[in-house]
Amino acid sequence: MNNERPLILISNDDGYKARGINFVAELLSTFADVVVMAPEGGRSGMGCAITSKEPVYYSLVRECQHLAIYKCSGTPVDCIKMALHELFPDRQPDLIVGGINHGDNSGVNVHYSGTMGIVIEGCMKGIPSVGFSLDNHSPEADFEPCAPYIVKIVEQVLDRGLPTGSCLNVNFPATPLYEGVKVCRMARGEWTQEWEEHPHPRGGNYYWLVGSFCLRDERPYEADRPNLTEGYVAVTPIQIDMTDYSLMQEIQANWDL
Amino acid sequence: MNNERPLILISNDDGYKARGINFVAELLSTFADVVVMAPEGGRSGMGCAITSKEPVYYSLVRECQHLAIYKCSGTPVDCIKMALHELFPDRQPDLIVGGINHGDNSGVNVHYSGTMGIVIEGCMKGIPSVGFSLDNHSPEADFEPCAPYIVKIVEQVLDRGLPTGSCLNVNFPATPLYEGVKVCRMARGEWTQEWEEHPHPRGGNYYWLVGSFCLRDERPYEADRPNLTEGYVAVTPIQIDMTDYSLMQEIQANWDL
Repeated sequence: MNNERPLILISNDDGYKARGINFVAELLSTFADVVVMAPEGGRSGMGCAITSKEPVYYSLVRECQHLAIYKCSGTPVDCIKMALHELFPDRQPDLIVGGINHGDNSGVNVHYSGTMGIVIEGCMKGIPSVGFSLDNHSPEADFEPCAPYIVKIVEQVLDRGLPTGSCLNVNFPATPLYEGVKVCRMARGEWTQEWEEHPHPRGGNYYWLVGSFCLRDERPYEADRPNLTEGYVAVTPIQIDMTDYSLMQEIQANWDL
Repeated sequence: MNNERPLILISNDDGYKARGINFVAELLSTFADVVVMAPEGGRSGMGCAITSKEPVYYSLVRECQHLAIYKCSGTPVDCIKMALHELFPDRQPDLIVGGINHGDNSGVNVHYSGTMGIVIEGCMKGIPSVGFSLDNHSPEADFEPCAPYIVKIVEQVLDRGLPTGSCLNVNFPATPLYEGVKVCRMARGEWTQEWEEHPHPRGGNYYWLVGSFCLRDERPYEADRPNLTEGYVAVTPIQIDMTDYSLMQEIQANWDL
């Protein structure tokens, strides 16, 4: 790295007022120039969704020496697209950060995660990108123990870069006193019992999406979700190329299409 | 396959009234029992988004001997979760189909695609899942030439199954007289010039998400988007495990975390 402060773009899916994103923005602005472009409200579970049917707005909320905060009416991915289009005429960000999210994004939850939507979008734009999530939904969740890990991971990514088409998904355990860091793969499993049914006062039923995650993983010691549960900070490298190359060869060789 | 008709669940992101989904539902109901659970309106670009902040509703639109159509207030992924929770007490579907979508979902667009959100969700639930998309947004787009390919691919998937954690993304060229079928990988590239800016009559600007896709692929002959452009039906196997295993090894060996 040169002597210039790194330029970091941050977004989230909990909205620009969330404690998590403000914690990370303050933390990183001690050594970087930080721009936040985050949704104006909560956008949990938006994955890589984009806004195609409505116009999108953004505006500056506040700025000081090394930190500027913008809000955007769109999805988490819209925020990244908008920031890259509007805010960096001379210099692309050196790093894109998603989070830190209130709630974990380990395992297959990457597919539903707005935090990881941000990171996948940054990665598709060729910018090193990292998502941070804390496995704790409590309004009083303590982000402080994450700080040294976030700084160290950000420094390593700024220093080493990431391969084109790959990004990082970092999840922190629910309670402090972490056991250490484990570099993991995405845990396998599925959500079950996903809907909670209630009778509507004017007839019929309505349904809330709930559910519990069932780990179905034959080698849990390699996987992020179980390591997270055991108190490790889980670092999972994610690639945007989802091709199943072995199935590609199998179909080419044996299917009749 | 036994003599029982296969049971196929279909959803889309264009809504239950769209021509595409009704075309596929009619086509497949000639040999299968078909259940449609699709959004009540358009949900393009929703990716794997789920609805976390609002209740979700569904209702039966109509049913006849081998086809039942339900509409749902949620996202494409919500539709699959709801259908699997509510409609199949005795027997899971043998196949989940997304589409046929009005517009292509090749290359990195898988990440934004509600059609592929359906397919990824089905795959996460352990059910063989296939997405179909036509590279033509015209209201008069002709789905008829897709029919024999859809039937053949559906038959092969019902017959052979798909590996756990993998699904198919099938894209049809914009114009008929296809050159044949190519089994491909996800094309690499990125969207550029993504926002169209307009002055708002009451001050400020609003932005429409637009953009053009720039192919950045060193081996285009292997990739879905270029083959689609050249008139081939592109079949791309997709896996839900997004782990970058080589980066995982690299970080374990060389990073200081």
